[in-house]
Amino acid sequence: MNRQFKPRDPQFEARVTESFDAQAVMQTLRAALLRVEPGEVEIELPYQAALTQQDGFLHAGISATVMDSACGYAAYTLMPVEARVLTIEFKINLLAPASGETFRAVGRVRKPGRSVFVAEGELYASRSGEDKLVATMGGTLMAIYPHERGD
Amino acid sequence: MNRQFKPRDPQFEARVTESFDAQAVMQTLRAALLRVEPGEVEIELPYQAALTQQDGFLHAGISATVMDSACGYAAYTLMPVEARVLTIEFKINLLAPASGETFRAVGRVRKPGRSVFVAEGELYASRSGEDKLVATMGGTLMAIYPHERGD
Amino acid sequence: MNRQFKPRDPQFEARVTESFDAQAVMQTLRAALLRVEPGEVEIELPYQAALTQQDGFLHAGISATVMDSACGYAAYTLMPVEARVLTIEFKINLLAPASGETFRAVGRVRKPGRSVFVAEGELYASRSGEDKLVATMGGTLMAIYPHERGD
Amino acid sequence: MNRQFKPRDPQFEARVTESFDAQAVMQTLRAALLRVEPGEVEIELPYQAALTQQDGFLHAGISATVMDSACGYAAYTLMPVEARVLTIEFKINLLAPASGETFRAVGRVRKPGRSVFVAEGELYASRSGEDKLVATMGGTLMAIYPHERGD
Repeated sequence: MNRQFKPRDPQFEARVTESFDAQAVMQTLRAALLRVEPGEVEIELPYQAALTQQDGFLHAGISATVMDSACGYAAYTLMPVEARVLTIEFKINLLAPASGETFRAVGRVRKPGRSVFVAEGELYASRSGEDKLVATMGGTLMAIYPHERGD
Repeated sequence: MNRQFKPRDPQFEARVTESFDAQAVMQTLRAALLRVEPGEVEIELPYQAALTQQDGFLHAGISATVMDSACGYAAYTLMPVEARVLTIEFKINLLAPASGETFRAVGRVRKPGRSVFVAEGELYASRSGEDKLVATMGGTLMAIYPHERGD
Repeated sequence: MNRQFKPRDPQFEARVTESFDAQAVMQTLRAALLRVEPGEVEIELPYQAALTQQDGFLHAGISATVMDSACGYAAYTLMPVEARVLTIEFKINLLAPASGETFRAVGRVRKPGRSVFVAEGELYASRSGEDKLVATMGGTLMAIYPHERGD
Repeated sequence: MNRQFKPRDPQFEARVTESFDAQAVMQTLRAALLRVEPGEVEIELPYQAALTQQDGFLHAGISATVMDSACGYAAYTLMPVEARVLTIEFKINLLAPASGETFRAVGRVRKPGRSVFVAEGELYASRSGEDKLVATMGGTLMAIYPHERGD
């Protein structure tokens, strides 16, 4: 349990789960929500040949998709109940080919704010129970409040 | 026709098409190669509810997927025939919700090199024939030569 | 004259100049404001051995300093009179060694907003009157309004 | 002592120190090398009004300058003796105003390679002995070997 951050909405886990279930792309990718804690979220993605680039590795954009959702929901755990979450930008560094049986994206809030959240993500590839870090992400998320336009 | 860059391999278009066809994820997303010129590549993606986030917009990671392929293949057009292309990193800025009937990712080489290529991408959302810029990308691609490990 | 953007404050040039003059680091670096237009700003920096890295090129961070100010002020030209400007994040790609007699940083707004602005920057190195693109930047700027905390 | 990485050159500390001393900009900024370990380097920068932006905070580009050198030298500690180090790109997220008496930039290698190194940086502002994280960086460094052009 992450004790660094105190969520403003005690129902943060239910709120994240509901939003995750509404991300159609997560079901399309067969991604699953593994863990939801204050400021930290983990998403699992099984390897699928349908998601690969020309060398049979997970496409960098698919890695980015699960990492972005992990970072976005990590920020969302700390937002008040009336806020929506929006990704402003992210950057991904690809450290090694995304090759494995399953992938685990971890998103962590580095700096919460009222509107602006900075989060970091990591993608681990698992093979025979061994984890390897294959990508890192740094991104900015925004909390959009009712009656705000979000830009 | 882009006259700024001279491809080292005259068969660059066939080489890009073949590699694109080998990216299983492009077929999964129903993305199509629209245009292949020296240093510039365009990819089209039809809107699909299966690719959306919780508000019904294209997920930022899916935007990143087609933009990364557009940038990667833009670089690949300028690589010699024996090279493979690898994404080192990219960053995406999301300017507006990715909402539209079709999306068009344009990748352009900004600086070619022997090993390191810098490319820029743009994502346009089309609705009723009108285009709107919804995301920009800046990334680094690498040419990997035979007998090189690629890191 | 850039006609794409309409500034909300007709005195935008005076406002940018005043803020630029208040950036002590610009005087320390001997940087000068070359051009201020709606959504576009140019800053000049003379080569100085005192600003170099170990190979005698302009240090990447100094390149970033003038590019960030160019991007920030480009956004500032479009902000209303009561707003302050803050950099949220930027990314720089170094295309070639920053070697030359003078450097010119150009910042351009790519997407204005109420709070969030996306800008792009370029750094040109000049030698014997010839310009060479040596770095590109993409960044996010924020307009902070009175009574807002800015995060 | 960082035991995660084994330097290829046992004289890595002397090599980093020599290169740091050759970065004229570090002396101009009055930055000092605090710590050199395998894959990790720390640089200190005293607050100076001459390095500030319009609100009296350290300019984001100056923050980037010391963080980039910390990341670059962190990578350099792990390179063989014949290699030079070059920054390919970096991204910085500004978490809080860079306000304090001294600043400490920490650079850490996240992934070493033969040519490509990924590093992460943090900038801490100290006031009355208390440290606050004010910026994070993610970047790519390259090892350039003799007879290579470096692009």
